[in-house]
Amino acid sequence: MNYGMIGYILAWVLTIESGFMVLFPPIVSLFYHDKSGIVFLITGLVGLAIGIPCIIRKPKNTSFFVRESFIVVGMSWVLMATFGALPFTFSGEIPNYVDALFETVSGFTTTGATILTNVEGLSHTCLFWRSFTHWLGGMGVCVFMLMIIPMAGGGSIHLMRAESPGPSVGKIVPKMRQSAVILWEIYIVMTVIQIVLMVICKMPLFDAICLGMGTAGTGGFGIKNDSLASYSPLLQWIVTVFMILFGVNFNVYFYIIRKDIKSALKMEEVRAYFIIILISILIITFNTLDFSNGNFGVALKDAAFQVGSVITTTGYSTVDFELWPTLSKTVLVIIMFIGACAGSTGGGIKVSRILISLRTIGSEIEHFIHPRSVKTVKMDGHSVEKETERSVSIYMLTFAVIYVCSLLVISMDKYDFTTNFTAVAATINNIGPGLGAVGPMGGFSGYSILSKIVFIFDMLAGRLELYPMLLLFWLPAWKKH
Amino acid sequence: MNYGMIGYILAWVLTIESGFMVLFPPIVSLFYHDKSGIVFLITGLVGLAIGIPCIIRKPKNTSFFVRESFIVVGMSWVLMATFGALPFTFSGEIPNYVDALFETVSGFTTTGATILTNVEGLSHTCLFWRSFTHWLGGMGVCVFMLMIIPMAGGGSIHLMRAESPGPSVGKIVPKMRQSAVILWEIYIVMTVIQIVLMVICKMPLFDAICLGMGTAGTGGFGIKNDSLASYSPLLQWIVTVFMILFGVNFNVYFYIIRKDIKSALKMEEVRAYFIIILISILIITFNTLDFSNGNFGVALKDAAFQVGSVITTTGYSTVDFELWPTLSKTVLVIIMFIGACAGSTGGGIKVSRILISLRTIGSEIEHFIHPRSVKTVKMDGHSVEKETERSVSIYMLTFAVIYVCSLLVISMDKYDFTTNFTAVAATINNIGPGLGAVGPMGGFSGYSILSKIVFIFDMLAGRLELYPMLLLFWLPAWKKH
Repeated sequence: MNYGMIGYILAWVLTIESGFMVLFPPIVSLFYHDKSGIVFLITGLVGLAIGIPCIIRKPKNTSFFVRESFIVVGMSWVLMATFGALPFTFSGEIPNYVDALFETVSGFTTTGATILTNVEGLSHTCLFWRSFTHWLGGMGVCVFMLMIIPMAGGGSIHLMRAESPGPSVGKIVPKMRQSAVILWEIYIVMTVIQIVLMVICKMPLFDAICLGMGTAGTGGFGIKNDSLASYSPLLQWIVTVFMILFGVNFNVYFYIIRKDIKSALKMEEVRAYFIIILISILIITFNTLDFSNGNFGVALKDAAFQVGSVITTTGYSTVDFELWPTLSKTVLVIIMFIGACAGSTGGGIKVSRILISLRTIGSEIEHFIHPRSVKTVKMDGHSVEKETERSVSIYMLTFAVIYVCSLLVISMDKYDFTTNFTAVAATINNIGPGLGAVGPMGGFSGYSILSKIVFIFDMLAGRLELYPMLLLFWLPAWKKH
Repeated sequence: MNYGMIGYILAWVLTIESGFMVLFPPIVSLFYHDKSGIVFLITGLVGLAIGIPCIIRKPKNTSFFVRESFIVVGMSWVLMATFGALPFTFSGEIPNYVDALFETVSGFTTTGATILTNVEGLSHTCLFWRSFTHWLGGMGVCVFMLMIIPMAGGGSIHLMRAESPGPSVGKIVPKMRQSAVILWEIYIVMTVIQIVLMVICKMPLFDAICLGMGTAGTGGFGIKNDSLASYSPLLQWIVTVFMILFGVNFNVYFYIIRKDIKSALKMEEVRAYFIIILISILIITFNTLDFSNGNFGVALKDAAFQVGSVITTTGYSTVDFELWPTLSKTVLVIIMFIGACAGSTGGGIKVSRILISLRTIGSEIEHFIHPRSVKTVKMDGHSVEKETERSVSIYMLTFAVIYVCSLLVISMDKYDFTTNFTAVAATINNIGPGLGAVGPMGGFSGYSILSKIVFIFDMLAGRLELYPMLLLFWLPAWKKH
């Protein structure tokens, strides 16, 4: 284990996060005369004072293996969250540190689950920081780290594997750093477009910035107690469209920039993603017509918003879907697990994994019919490697095991099965709200400390594609070799 | 597709089932002066009149491939159930034929889910037939067919694969037919021992026969509305022990008969099975102490009974565990999925599949630490073949897909998420009761016809290890090749 390099990278993470802390929240605080700004400033300066001395000298040995990269990714996120949670507690706005940690992990992992019962009680500075963690976490420290590690020498491929969302990383351009820059550019431009559009449609600027960052990162922290219910239908439609756009595999936008529309349209994952969205919206619209007094337009708007919010794992809401009929709720639970496209800012199992799984099953059945045929699973016209097929299956199993263990631990609390089941789904898939007591109008505040720690683990595991978090707790990984 | 052979085997299935119909129910009916006996006699005679002429001449072409064997297994069970359901409807005791079919499928698949709201309203003859289907289904038409097909020539290996419960068939003795006979002998002897023990402990003979057959097949149809709640604690303990024994891999008993105790004790699946049972009982006992007014003995008895009943997928109950705390209910839901050992009469995913899955995950994580190491998963000291590892993963995926589709369809009914979720679990794992409205004191009668058909499919799919039922509806499987 190359502890020198691990420390070096962690120091970079701390420095960059502290830099953001010093830079943005104090500005917000000046605008709104919040007292919390000074807390962010001091915490950030302390972070810089610790971080900067450690990044001046690069370690001599920069060799890095899968194990190290998985562990450094896990530790980076834990560091970011534990440090990023401090101002919430120091400012007294979220006095309990575990709650603050839950909130910050929920932010960076773009989950959007909250332990706050009154979001509107937070200062503007804290609200901004909450949404800003979404935005940072959304594109993933992945890309952000891709820009750091090449400085430090090889190993970035492993990091890519450990942190990129979904099985298909997509080699956009051969040079990693270059592709990271392009992805960030797309991300920033799309965020800005959304914010501008919302401001034009009469959303206050502060709201637009916070909600825009939450949409881009597919996060889901609202800044009002009723999430997005009180904004105009037009604004809700804008958010719906952008949520869905941020759940698309970013390779599509890259193709579009290169004017390669044909390749963009050919991506099977993206097509499947839109088909699932369309079917879900249709089912829910007709199923909830009574709920909106037979008004088709309202039913369609609310169905589209909630489907877009849940499948992209954003987690905003415009209605209390806990009150919807069981069919609609079941559709939402199913798309909670499906999640967004690989290579997007969204979480969940990912559409591509679902597609590969379904095709693997199909080829297994075909094999029973023609035992001597060679089984191949195809995606986008290419054969999927056996190794990918295998790792997708194992990913699903690992997911199920973490799920069941989490469910068991949190069942010791007072809640019913549906609440617990969807609470785990909402955290491990980085969505935010579930059903029952953790529904869109509820929250996670009633769970015990132990359960909150489980949720924190689940949110991180879900965001980091499971293995980095497992390796952190897998003792043999820490042995010298 | 060898239609001649398929027809021949189906004719045998019909003949044997008709034989049982003519033989046993009329005797019960004579004892209790039921009118239903005559219905069974006539239905059975008609069945014989159709079946016997078709089995006189064996087809010339007896060649049989995987495809044919999967399809013939699926069709056999469908035939057995559709034919076995007729007397319920003809006698007027279950007037709706879909309900009767549900009940019979539930019987043969050893599920024990019921659409009856008043079981005690059935005649003794029908009660007997219900429990008898459990007993027949329990050891599986597998073994029963193994005795027929060798007469017809090769292909039995494929059938074994299609119908035997779990990934490890276990080549008990080289000759298939011989091993089938041994398994049936063990099965019969154990059933008789249980019945005798229960009669000694003052259970009425009729009750003992019905409940004994239900235990042996890990079925779960009770003959009283409160299942086994009204029997003495001693009788409940006897049933607990025998439920757990029938969930053990039958290879253990075969080893014991051969006095090879060492091999019997070495089976990792069986050890894991007992460990899971022990832990579950402990958790539930302490969690439900309040429920039994702090009486440890009662809590232990009820915990052991319910755990034994659920993990072996039997489905008897002595308490309404719907009223238990969430933790205990969650433990029950988890062991619903785990299920019994492979090579037992129980259903569920099977302990061996769970073990192989966990070890596959472990070897994947090890692989991240030592990327160049060769990954092997071991069971009982032997390396698990890559092909087995792969097929276990795909089995789990297939299971999940069937699960999700079923859940979606039945969500159109009026029930809540927990009821629906556990209703699918209770049928596809062949258990019987779930939580909520399908809890131990509830039933499936309130579901729509469509949902009942979904449950019928799930019960059959679960019992036949998924693929035979999928192949029945996979159109390319029917094409000429």
